[in-house]
Amino acid sequence: MIIDKLIEKVDLKKSHIVVGLDPRIELMPENFISKKIREGASLSNILFEFNKKIIDSVYDLVPAVKPQVAYYEMYGIEGMIAFRDTIKYAKEKGLIVISDVKRSDIGSTSKAYSNAHLGKVLFSGKQVNDFKTDAVTINPYLGSDTVKEFIEDIKEDGGMIFLLVKTSNKSSGEIQDRISNNKKIYEYVCASINSFADDTLGKNNYHSIGAVTGATYSSELSQIRKLIPRSYLLVPGYGAQGGKGSDVVSGFNKDGLGALVNSSRGIIYAFNRIGKNIGESARIAVKEMNEDINLNLKNVNKYRW
Amino acid sequence: MIIDKLIEKVDLKKSHIVVGLDPRIELMPENFISKKIREGASLSNILFEFNKKIIDSVYDLVPAVKPQVAYYEMYGIEGMIAFRDTIKYAKEKGLIVISDVKRSDIGSTSKAYSNAHLGKVLFSGKQVNDFKTDAVTINPYLGSDTVKEFIEDIKEDGGMIFLLVKTSNKSSGEIQDRISNNKKIYEYVCASINSFADDTLGKNNYHSIGAVTGATYSSELSQIRKLIPRSYLLVPGYGAQGGKGSDVVSGFNKDGLGALVNSSRGIIYAFNRIGKNIGESARIAVKEMNEDINLNLKNVNKYRW
Repeated sequence: MIIDKLIEKVDLKKSHIVVGLDPRIELMPENFISKKIREGASLSNILFEFNKKIIDSVYDLVPAVKPQVAYYEMYGIEGMIAFRDTIKYAKEKGLIVISDVKRSDIGSTSKAYSNAHLGKVLFSGKQVNDFKTDAVTINPYLGSDTVKEFIEDIKEDGGMIFLLVKTSNKSSGEIQDRISNNKKIYEYVCASINSFADDTLGKNNYHSIGAVTGATYSSELSQIRKLIPRSYLLVPGYGAQGGKGSDVVSGFNKDGLGALVNSSRGIIYAFNRIGKNIGESARIAVKEMNEDINLNLKNVNKYRW
Repeated sequence: MIIDKLIEKVDLKKSHIVVGLDPRIELMPENFISKKIREGASLSNILFEFNKKIIDSVYDLVPAVKPQVAYYEMYGIEGMIAFRDTIKYAKEKGLIVISDVKRSDIGSTSKAYSNAHLGKVLFSGKQVNDFKTDAVTINPYLGSDTVKEFIEDIKEDGGMIFLLVKTSNKSSGEIQDRISNNKKIYEYVCASINSFADDTLGKNNYHSIGAVTGATYSSELSQIRKLIPRSYLLVPGYGAQGGKGSDVVSGFNKDGLGALVNSSRGIIYAFNRIGKNIGESARIAVKEMNEDINLNLKNVNKYRW
């Protein structure tokens, strides 16, 4: 089960960080791009090579990476080739891959998405779902039948899903915080997560249905931690979006587990701030972030090691 | 503006139908697949050729097609090539293309999705967003800032978006029908659609921000029609999901416009029911559906021609 492998890697690397792999040509160093173009590299190769530099520099320091598919989809077929290659390479380097796809649809279409990212698709006896990954993010707005299709694949293949509960953006409250029958909409999503979790519990007492909960909403994070105690929380919003180490500790349980904190721009484009090359700067940024989070966890007696 | 082109094509073809292009290998005729494999066709080619048969048979009868990206994504890179080629071919045949992607994300990531499907992405002076289309479906659960990024591109480039308001699946009410402050969640989404619509009004008095509203919920369809009078409604659920011509008329305005009724399986796999080849069967199914909808519109005095 991916949830068990994930916790194994968290313990091994003493890290709760997910590195967001969001390759954006306009944010990459100009000399990196121009060198690649001179070498005749394809667009997919440039995107992948950028990610490879990051992965090679941080794979021993973090348990997981999170490619955000929007930054691949925008580059068309070339982008999707880089997406496929990035997932494959990150897995080879021993990382758990959480594909940030925020997919959602109904019935057989939801099943198609699940097949695409977590399940099996065979053609002429060959597996053709190139984007097969370890875990995906899911948008719950369409209701529980959309989620159920993914859960079948999880039970069969051991993957994970993270449902969007409370996202890190400013207007997330417009729907997610609305109160209905004395409960916020996101609390209903939490209830559905608990109801889905049967038969997905791993050996560390965490199950395979997680939740996305932004670091930018610290009190909600704390509340959600209690509502879904055995779910892993994927916590975006650290760094570039303003979240700090002290903001994320409420996402953890007393066992020192239970949350993965994501940073994308703050790590992969750290060369702007740190001034070394892409990989070295990312490594320094990850070490700083690991220290920040681990120190803050120590301060609240949630440190595990 | 796509909304104007759409209505032009609706009038030209006297049709309110969108044909869903959801290519699924396991539902295609075995002799079609085996012949293609013998000819050495790639998977992308098989998927595209199936769609091409449908498009060639119906392009003069309907204003629009709706490829559902999940059925391409599940076939990996080959699937995405077919997705790209299908969009391109359908546009060449004069059809409006609504990419059913149900995307949603925050800030710059939402912008990346908008760039991917409606905007521009340049690399080395070349446009590389292969999936560029006329319109997309959007999931509103993350709040209005996610939608705003798309609206910028719409205002610049004239495309359309359809926000998920009330989806056709059984559990859609779990979040969408929840009542908060005397209003259902989907009613808040309708209000946000009206607030976004400024400056996107076309010459037929419809704006570029539409809504997805299932045929399977007829009374909600009728209510939503009134809440967002100048929005085009994309109405799935006809045919295979159980919706009938009489169910969808409430999605139309008195001008005989305002809704596009989608059918996917009922048309593209009509050969199972009708017994002719893929294209001929699809054409017969489309003609039946056009008649059914137009007759029902006549019955309620919403017939335009």
